[in-house]
Amino acid sequence: MILTNATVATMQDGYGLMEQAAVVLQDDRITWVGPMGDLADTGEQIDLGGRLVTPGLIDCHSHVVFAGTRATEFEMRLQGASYEEIARSGGGIISTVKATRLASEDDLLAQSLLRVDQMLAEGVTSLEIKSGYGLDVETELRMLRVARKIGQLRPIRVVTTFLGAHAVPPEYRDRADDYLTEQAIPALRAAHAEGLVDAVDGFCEGIAFSPAQIERVFAEASALGLPVKLHAEQLSNLHGAALAARHGALSADHLEYLDEDGAHAMAAAGTVAVILPGAFYTLRETKLPPIDLLRRHGVRMAVATDCNPGTAPMTSPCLAMNMACTLFRMTPAEALLGTTVHAAAALGLRDAGIIAPGMRADLAIWHARHPAELSWRVGATPLHSRIFGGKLDA
Amino acid sequence: MILTNATVATMQDGYGLMEQAAVVLQDDRITWVGPMGDLADTGEQIDLGGRLVTPGLIDCHSHVVFAGTRATEFEMRLQGASYEEIARSGGGIISTVKATRLASEDDLLAQSLLRVDQMLAEGVTSLEIKSGYGLDVETELRMLRVARKIGQLRPIRVVTTFLGAHAVPPEYRDRADDYLTEQAIPALRAAHAEGLVDAVDGFCEGIAFSPAQIERVFAEASALGLPVKLHAEQLSNLHGAALAARHGALSADHLEYLDEDGAHAMAAAGTVAVILPGAFYTLRETKLPPIDLLRRHGVRMAVATDCNPGTAPMTSPCLAMNMACTLFRMTPAEALLGTTVHAAAALGLRDAGIIAPGMRADLAIWHARHPAELSWRVGATPLHSRIFGGKLDA
Ligand SMILES: [Zn+2]
Ligand SMILES: [Zn+2]
Repeated sequence: MILTNATVATMQDGYGLMEQAAVVLQDDRITWVGPMGDLADTGEQIDLGGRLVTPGLIDCHSHVVFAGTRATEFEMRLQGASYEEIARSGGGIISTVKATRLASEDDLLAQSLLRVDQMLAEGVTSLEIKSGYGLDVETELRMLRVARKIGQLRPIRVVTTFLGAHAVPPEYRDRADDYLTEQAIPALRAAHAEGLVDAVDGFCEGIAFSPAQIERVFAEASALGLPVKLHAEQLSNLHGAALAARHGALSADHLEYLDEDGAHAMAAAGTVAVILPGAFYTLRETKLPPIDLLRRHGVRMAVATDCNPGTAPMTSPCLAMNMACTLFRMTPAEALLGTTVHAAAALGLRDAGIIAPGMRADLAIWHARHPAELSWRVGATPLHSRIFGGKLDA
Repeated sequence: MILTNATVATMQDGYGLMEQAAVVLQDDRITWVGPMGDLADTGEQIDLGGRLVTPGLIDCHSHVVFAGTRATEFEMRLQGASYEEIARSGGGIISTVKATRLASEDDLLAQSLLRVDQMLAEGVTSLEIKSGYGLDVETELRMLRVARKIGQLRPIRVVTTFLGAHAVPPEYRDRADDYLTEQAIPALRAAHAEGLVDAVDGFCEGIAFSPAQIERVFAEASALGLPVKLHAEQLSNLHGAALAARHGALSADHLEYLDEDGAHAMAAAGTVAVILPGAFYTLRETKLPPIDLLRRHGVRMAVATDCNPGTAPMTSPCLAMNMACTLFRMTPAEALLGTTVHAAAALGLRDAGIIAPGMRADLAIWHARHPAELSWRVGATPLHSRIFGGKLDA
């Protein structure tokens, strides 16, 4: 397949913008990109009429597999209920854990596919999916099986992340270490044995797990040869980013409270900063992530939806990009690097995120002429079509 | 057509929620709604499997007809350019005016239809469209012709609004009254003569038109027998809401700086408050509209996208609803009343916005069980299908 008359954002060296360009695809790979005048290949041509082509978007931080909604809790809060009242009525993350434990694999899959299908319509071709709403061996495994199944049923690459250390379930209240010993770590081992785990994540925060507890999880990941990443410095500074960097983490995520030492450690380790403006927006936080500090230290920044029922029920990377610009003052180029090149790095993907020979033929074609348009719109994704593994979506 | 096994939010008296309900449609009207057990009609039944049905959404404030984008300006600002630099490089509303003046009717239509098609996918069945990027007789008329054409080409009801008093074009700098005399008022008369105008709007603000100038436009509207509405109190308090109320306005829109007198006047006149959180979000405003004041005075609140290239390039009423909740602390019920019942009132539509016998059969069917879900999600619209004038979208 040859795409002609395209405006191509190769995402090499910034946008890497080429007008009047062509992209040649063979099987599931890109084999050539360049000016139309230099095109040597012959074959089926698709004239894009000047439309923008980017790498398929990569959503590198999502909790898209879950059951139920949190609409009731959202409504209660806006009707003036206190956090205590909401907790007493069964709200909060535990309500999602309960719903997810009760859902059959088929039901969990069906509910999650509705969201994944929205992501396809948003131009996503690679998607990270975390566990972490099971918080017991059986349900953590079920979540990861559903994640793998999504990758089989839909034209999207799924990268799974084990997040047993997401929250302490009520049956282990004040016994987080016992929870890790008896549930999370056994679940990780079992999931790994089943080939369900591509990386290991944790939530390092006062309301979740301490740095010492995260170290335990990371030690287990290391023993299994799995890369790590961490929810760090979202609500306070526990120096999780530096901890993650010491373990050679792929990414540290959220980072509103990141300090200079943390940024320095991330830069030295090549750990990607995953910026998640959706949760910041929903929680009406005021502490901005230190974008300038990350720039100064040359830390690569990714941008993701954080799709989750509590703090970011969103499925649009373009909306996350717009929020990264509007709320955090990132530039549209940084935002698009954040959902392509840097998102690929955050997932350890070496064959995605740029348009170049040898890369996977995962592309997004847009009703747009300039890549800044993708960040400019507020939650309106101008997707024209999507190519996954060299195949145009029907 | 009979919809069965539905969760119906009739939007009469709050959500007016009915579970296990049926809705009967005949031609383009709703003829019956009630518990499935009481269903007497026979005919083609569609089992909705418990899905939520609401009135089709009504977007009562949009500038969806325009040419070009403002992505370059968005990017420049985030790269650190000052407003002066952006203005010097041709940015701001005037860049949209230039692009719109240059666009042919076909081109303007094609560009606008991309956005309208997104709105259809968001469950919109009635859409207000304003002129105001022409700012000369010819282009204002062209915008309104395109708006009417959209209503012919797509299954959506279009309500047009003449907004010649949107901005003073550069050729009339410091001569706003001459602009009204020579362009805006003649354009209004010509557009009305062509049957292109359903209502008349203005932008009452220091950077746009003074109250006295708005009075001139409203006097003309009154002479033509057209209802009025007003962009008021967005950036300062010029008492535009009270002015609008004195003229029996359908709505006053934005209202961040509304005071108690204004709210009182609106309540007395039955003028709807149109809440537009998208612009607030994009401009990173901090002055919240006085929601409690509006509640206290019993002013009906609508919620709209304000779809426009400068301050709200968005097409999703559900995202506007989420922003109204998250940023302005409206409740999900208020937000949904704001895109149904109260949006209908803001447009003077008497046969839309609720599900009841005699109303138009304009419905939205959702992948949802409870109406609060529509506000809970952030920019992810769970539309299952749409019915317009009794016909299910293909
Ligand atoms: Zn997360
Ligand atoms: Zn407006």
